[in-house]
Amino acid sequence: MPRFKLTLEYDGAPFVGWQRQANGVSVQETLENAIFAMTGERAHLQGAGRTDAGVHALGQVAHADLSRRWPTFRLAEGLNAHLVPHPVAVLKAEIAPQDFDARRSATARHYLYRIVNRRAPLTLEARRAWLVKPRLDVEAMREAARTLIGKHDFTTFRDSQCQASSPVRTLDRLDIQGERDTLTFEASALSFLHRQVRSVVGSLVEVGAGRWTSADLKDALEAADRSRCGKVAPAHGLYLARVDYPPDP
Amino acid sequence: MPRFKLTLEYDGAPFVGWQRQANGVSVQETLENAIFAMTGERAHLQGAGRTDAGVHALGQVAHADLSRRWPTFRLAEGLNAHLVPHPVAVLKAEIAPQDFDARRSATARHYLYRIVNRRAPLTLEARRAWLVKPRLDVEAMREAARTLIGKHDFTTFRDSQCQASSPVRTLDRLDIQGERDTLTFEASALSFLHRQVRSVVGSLVEVGAGRWTSADLKDALEAADRSRCGKVAPAHGLYLARVDYPPDP
Repeated sequence: MPRFKLTLEYDGAPFVGWQRQANGVSVQETLENAIFAMTGERAHLQGAGRTDAGVHALGQVAHADLSRRWPTFRLAEGLNAHLVPHPVAVLKAEIAPQDFDARRSATARHYLYRIVNRRAPLTLEARRAWLVKPRLDVEAMREAARTLIGKHDFTTFRDSQCQASSPVRTLDRLDIQGERDTLTFEASALSFLHRQVRSVVGSLVEVGAGRWTSADLKDALEAADRSRCGKVAPAHGLYLARVDYPPDP
Repeated sequence: MPRFKLTLEYDGAPFVGWQRQANGVSVQETLENAIFAMTGERAHLQGAGRTDAGVHALGQVAHADLSRRWPTFRLAEGLNAHLVPHPVAVLKAEIAPQDFDARRSATARHYLYRIVNRRAPLTLEARRAWLVKPRLDVEAMREAARTLIGKHDFTTFRDSQCQASSPVRTLDRLDIQGERDTLTFEASALSFLHRQVRSVVGSLVEVGAGRWTSADLKDALEAADRSRCGKVAPAHGLYLARVDYPPDP
């Protein structure tokens, strides 16, 4: 059966998350239903990352096997037609090698976290960014962020329910782009722990708001103790932006 | 009575437009109700521009007279509290000179128009940008846009219901910023005719999609004939971005 790679965008607001769950509508289920409506097949969709409830995607990747070799343009167009009115879109459909696995083949994951730093409530950005009212010292956050780059035990910055066998991860990039009142955190790694980005961003906001020093952040990291994490940033500011794979041979 | 200048942001989607109307909820009425709830006064709010139904604002400006000299920070915070759950926010409140008029004192108005140029439906940008599916030739649109810069009779590009006494306007700026599939048109003028930006953008898309040449656009402008306008771009891609005023003396 041909394997298809789908690149996906979604507004996480109405979903219980990527993963199929009993307590509500998931992105995975919504897509699998669209595949069924179009092809008559109950395919299983494997995603690159399990985004939590409320988390958005600009470039989630998933794979599925279908019995028919659909023209990729037609597959994308057909799925998009069947996805209406759900805020999920297939940006691209491609034929993938048989051994391609959206989760296991990934060589890097890139997340964005968006903060609006102002007093006024959000309007157009409601449920699309985190509103932080205290004025943030962006330079202090940038300095503290450097502490987290590289290979560390990220126990402090992972959810207590995280199922990864090791708390050690290598954070390749953690940049903070700022434009007036809008900040975008850019985090890249081979893989992340559960709620790692939101835990890191929340703790950096403690630094930016002056409640923590850069040294406090370093101590929290080195303590490898979940109770030392700052406030976890809300889901609706987080975007799975892109997933990288080895070039097609 | 002290005069207040308010800088406003709103999501235009749920409103019938800026202007108070019998057929639905307007931004003006929503704000005037918040002023009443906070101050007990039935103030009249004068906006710099009457945005149509669905049109957004990042920096609309309005003025109102209140009998009490409210501390501006407290006024903004109080109005924002009373605006919940409407997607309207007071970004800034200032004391203005008695002769300040949000509409008549304006020296420039800046609009943005956002297009997403791709096949896939919009998710996060739904109702916040215009989805244009045919691949647009941005350079052709940029060249055609230059035709419109300067002082012209814009009859072709104004709504047939436009109440301005003259169809002549001076378009100071019409830039097209492009980043991957997202295009942002930036238009600046002392003032615009009704639906001028949407008419211009819609006609430039005719050029970008290859249905019109740059010469067709020039001919349409010179014809000064509303029937020669291209498809008017939808309201939900348009943002009143900023209004300029003379520096405070």
